[in-house]
This record gives sequence, C-alpha cells and structure tokens, in this order.
Amino acid sequence: MKIVCNRTDLVSGVSIVSKAVSNKTTLPILECILIEASAGTITLTANDMELGIETNIEGNILEQGKIALDAKLFFEIVRKLPDNDVTIETDSDYKATITCEKACFHIVGQEGSEFPYLPEIEKEKSITLSQFTLKEVIRQTIFSISDNENNKLMTGELFEVEDNKLNVVSLDGHRISIRNIELKESFDSFKVVVPGKTLQEITKIISGDAEKDVIIYVTNKHILFEFDQTRVVSRLLEGEYYKISQMLSSDYETKITINKKEFLDCIDRASLLIRESDKKPIVINITDNSLELNISSFFGSMEENILIQKEGRDILIGFNPKFLMDVLRVIDDEEINIYLVNPKAPCFIKDSSESYIYLILPVNFNH
Amino acid sequence: MKIVCNRTDLVSGVSIVSKAVSNKTTLPILECILIEASAGTITLTANDMELGIETNIEGNILEQGKIALDAKLFFEIVRKLPDNDVTIETDSDYKATITCEKACFHIVGQEGSEFPYLPEIEKEKSITLSQFTLKEVIRQTIFSISDNENNKLMTGELFEVEDNKLNVVSLDGHRISIRNIELKESFDSFKVVVPGKTLQEITKIISGDAEKDVIIYVTNKHILFEFDQTRVVSRLLEGEYYKISQMLSSDYETKITINKKEFLDCIDRASLLIRESDKKPIVINITDNSLELNISSFFGSMEENILIQKEGRDILIGFNPKFLMDVLRVIDDEEINIYLVNPKAPCFIKDSSESYIYLILPVNFNH
Repeated sequence: MKIVCNRTDLVSGVSIVSKAVSNKTTLPILECILIEASAGTITLTANDMELGIETNIEGNILEQGKIALDAKLFFEIVRKLPDNDVTIETDSDYKATITCEKACFHIVGQEGSEFPYLPEIEKEKSITLSQFTLKEVIRQTIFSISDNENNKLMTGELFEVEDNKLNVVSLDGHRISIRNIELKESFDSFKVVVPGKTLQEITKIISGDAEKDVIIYVTNKHILFEFDQTRVVSRLLEGEYYKISQMLSSDYETKITINKKEFLDCIDRASLLIRESDKKPIVINITDNSLELNISSFFGSMEENILIQKEGRDILIGFNPKFLMDVLRVIDDEEINIYLVNPKAPCFIKDSSESYIYLILPVNFNH
Repeated sequence: MKIVCNRTDLVSGVSIVSKAVSNKTTLPILECILIEASAGTITLTANDMELGIETNIEGNILEQGKIALDAKLFFEIVRKLPDNDVTIETDSDYKATITCEKACFHIVGQEGSEFPYLPEIEKEKSITLSQFTLKEVIRQTIFSISDNENNKLMTGELFEVEDNKLNVVSLDGHRISIRNIELKESFDSFKVVVPGKTLQEITKIISGDAEKDVIIYVTNKHILFEFDQTRVVSRLLEGEYYKISQMLSSDYETKITINKKEFLDCIDRASLLIRESDKKPIVINITDNSLELNISSFFGSMEENILIQKEGRDILIGFNPKFLMDVLRVIDDEEINIYLVNPKAPCFIKDSSESYIYLILPVNFNH
C-alpha cells in the first residue's frame, strides 16, 4: 500500500475512528486502526466488537492495499507531524514508513486482512434527523443512564420511533429523562435500546451542525449512524425496555414556575456543604411566592430564598441535589415549571408541550 | 468581627493566600485562612510554616476582630456566591455567618488568635525588579530543580545578587540552568537558596506585568516578596550552594546555530517512540550544514534532518530528549547556538551575552 494524504485530514479521520479502539482487549489487533486503500477510497476503521467506526479520508492512492497500525502510536505520530502531505507506505513484512517533509518514521503493523470488518447492516428501517438535534437529545438525557452493569438495559437509552415522533428515554431507578422530538417526516416504527457508550462517542464525533443530517438505520441487533464521511455501527442492548407510561402522570397538587439559573446556582451553593458519600438531601419549602432551600451538614448550614410563582398547596420536600442540578443544567429554558404531588411522590420538570419530561424521586429527610 | 466586601475582591484575595494553606498537617489551624479586620484594613493570611502569604483586600469594617476559617470550604463558598457584596459576621462561639443577597451560610471557625503569624522580616537587604522579569526568570529555570528531597539544596534555586547583577541558578545533577539579569540599580550583595515550591507559588500569584514591581527582602533565614497588596514570606534552604563556576567553560570544538522551533518539534516527534522508563537517548549526528536525529526503540524508528550552520568538528552525541526539550521550550529566541566539545562532555546552549546559559550532560548510546 502507498498513499499520500494531507496531515490535517489524517488527524481528523484518525481522531474519529479512535473512539472505537479497544483499550482493554486480549486481541491485539483491536488496538489497531485499519487503513485500507482500494477503488479510489482511503478508509480508516476501528472496531472493539461492540462499537465500530469507519471514515473515508481524501488522498492519493499510489498502490492499493491495507495495513493495521497501533492506534495510539499512529495517532501520536500523525498529530506531531508538520502540517503537510504525509506518505504512508508498507512493505511485505507489514512495516509501515510514514514520511512528512524531512521526518521519517518506521513502525511495524499487522496484516490488514486479520482486522475484523464491521457487520453489514441491512438498510431497511431508518430515520433522518439533524446532527444538532441528535447531539442535543443525547446531551439532555445521557446523564440519567445507570453505570451499574447489573441492570444492563439501564446503561442504554431507548430510541422509539412512531410515525414522525422520536422518543428518547433514559432512567437509572431514581429518575427518568424523556425527550420527544418531531421528525421532519414519518418513518417505519421501531424501538431499540442503544448502549450509553455508543451515544457518548457519537456526540464527540458529530458536529452539532443543524444543516447536516445523520441517517440512523436499525436492525434487530445493530444500529448504524451515517453522517459526513463516517459510519458508526453499534450492537444494541437486548431485552424489553422498562414500561414508563404508568409512571408518568399529569396530576399534581403544586405547580411552581422558577428562574432556572437562580435555582441552579442556589442548589450548587448548597451542595458545597455535602460530600457525595453523605447522601444528605436538600430540603425545599414551597409557600406562596417563595421557595426556601435549607441544608444542614457536618460542615455547616445554609438557607436561601427564591421568588417563585405558585399554584396549589404548600409543600416541604427533600431531594438529592445532584439529580436536580443534572436536569437544570441541560434545560435551555430560562423559566421552568415543576409539578409536585406530595413529599413521597416523584416530581416532574417539563415544558407545556412535553418536548422534555424529567421525573425525579424525592428523598426522605429529618425535620 | 463584621465586614462587608465585594465578592470579586474576596475571591481574588482568598485565591492568593490559598497557595500557602497546608494540605497535610497535624495542626488543623494551618488548614485555615485567617481573616483579620483592624485599623481600617482587612487582611487574609495563610501559613504552612514554610511558606506564608498575606494580602489586604478592600472592604468596610463594621466591627473589628479576627477569625480562622477552613480554607477549602471558605474558598468554595465565596466562589459560588452571587457577584455582589458579601457580609462576614462572627459571634463569640467563632461561628461565622456569610451572607450575600438571599444566600446565607453558617460555618464554624476557630479562634483567630491561635493562628501562627508570619515571621517579622527585617527590611535591610532588598532588590527591586519587575513582576514580568521575576516570572520569566522562574519559568526559565524552575524545570531543572530536583524533586529528590535527599539533596535538599537541589530542590531550590540560587538567587545571587552582586551590584546590579542578579544571577539565578538551578541544577539537578544532570543539567544546570542559569539566568543573568541586569537590575535597574545596584544593591547590597546577597546569596540565598529559595525553595522551589515558593517560586512555583509566587509565579502563580504575580501578574507578569512589566510595569509592576516586586521588592524582595532577604535575611539569614527568610525571603519576603512584596508586591501589590501581598506579602509572601518563605524560609530559605540552608547550606552552601554548589560551586558552578568551574563547570562553566567557553571552550568548544563544535558550534551550531539552529532554528529552535524546528529542533524542538523534531525532538518532540522523536520522543513519541520512547517511554520515560526506557531512558533511550536520541542520537544527534552533526555534519556540515546538517543535523541528523536518530531514534530507535521497541516501538519503531525515526530519522529526520535539519539544516544548520556549523563551525568546527563533526560530532555524534546522545541526549535525554526531555532535557533538550525543557530548555528549548523556555528560550524565546528563534535561532539558538549550541556549543559542544565531545560526546562525553556537557553541551551548552547560550546566547552571546550569556543572559541565559543551559548546560546539559550527554548520555551514552550504542552505535
């Protein structure tokens, strides 16, 4: 194989596929990036057997072929090369020579044909949405997946399509995050659970450009994201996702409207007095036009008042401050509505059109 | 005590003195910041018994007094307060109430009079230089102190003054860094060894402004840096510093002039193929108008040529790449001169006026 490509293109391509390089594996080839030059296309591929990414880069192919190179070393080398044309040439012993201006590296690779190809995905069911929307949806839900591998399904997110609606859900047993998106057209229905890791890596790669699309294809076992010059394939999580409809209710006893930033800053200050391990709740006392927040711990105590609009009954309720902050940080609205029933029942933070719904369970507290 | 001051002033003051808060101590009071309001001045002090910092901040004193507050918690609280006036009030049980807008914190402090005051420094011997110069001098020498506590003097830097010359030296047994500064006027001679940690903290605090001065006072035991509203007092390291004059020589067999950035980038690339633990040298082959760098390791090999100007003999010599990079990173000149004698003798990197001199010992290598 002999190819010439621009260092900037190479760096951005390697940076994209690197997200799927395995870092704990017994198969050394999975620590590599496959470079393949054939039929006018240079393709970079990485695959940790759960998640696979391939991307095409610009360049001249002087001799077709393929080689698998250690991902970390190869990435470091191309990043540190001068910003100019890079030539990659391999010999029959899988030795690669990487030349750029007067710098010349020799590293030993592995046979390209040993590299596991990405699974072929049947392109039957798909949806199209903008990179911006996908990135937002992930950001606004990913924080409430669980990292407990015993509840495998909780480590992923539900992507459910019906007609022109996309419904994305994550939950961890203490809270539920829901985003409802209206798609530009109707698509065939599907319901899949995508691993959280896949979504975290996808958001790092997609640009967040509202003008650029992502096409998402699903099969029984896999999901494929196609955008720009890149394809990301991931296994799906298997099993029936939690039925959340019976947990959602629009009944409430108290509804408040509060300035999001004021509320977030106030909880942020209060949580200074708590160490994660304490599990100390913050206590919120809602009366007419006033929300009073109280916290008392080994380190000291704090109280603060915020002006609110209130409908319905007064209520005194405790929360894990982190759960409230996680939600407040991802909502873009300046004013938000919070719906409460009683100190044992979940509270809801949602907008009037229910484009987002966040459910948070309260915490017991001592008066 | 009751004081009112602006949150921004408070944050910047606490941030400055926090650099002297002890984080491993058996004396809990050393984990505190002393706030003292008396005679029209609000002073913040921290002191880990090696290094002490005090700074004055603006504010209104409604009631004189003092209190010691846990530095970490107090800093976190003031950082997260709204940007407005902050009132700090203490009661007879050393409980402090910190109020800002509607937020109100209560934390328990300690008796201010138990806090160890900074030593009084006799202001007999001093020099004055700009904050910019002091910051530069430290940046350009601090990397070659030793972190080995067995050679206590090597963990500090020599500050030697004679007439209008300031000479700053650091060394770690493999290399020496020297900066020679011409002061604006002549001062009484002195020769002290300042702990590296003190210098590292000082550079974080001083602004680097060429228009602002630092006055440095020395006694037998202490050094005091005075600038802006701040005083930093540190113990000195005791003992006779290494005599370096006999290690410096202006004889050479080979002199080269090389582009600093090209040389640095080239070594940076080459060092990709080395892990710190390897202790692999880079090998430099200097011939007429050409410097060829070679490295070969378990990971691969690399070679690169750089155009140079050369006087004198050809030479083949090995170096620890980190030592060369540390020096090249802090020199501002675009073109640098390197002086070599033979593959066993130290090389010198210095400018013609010797405002900087860097000595680096070479490393043995196998052909």
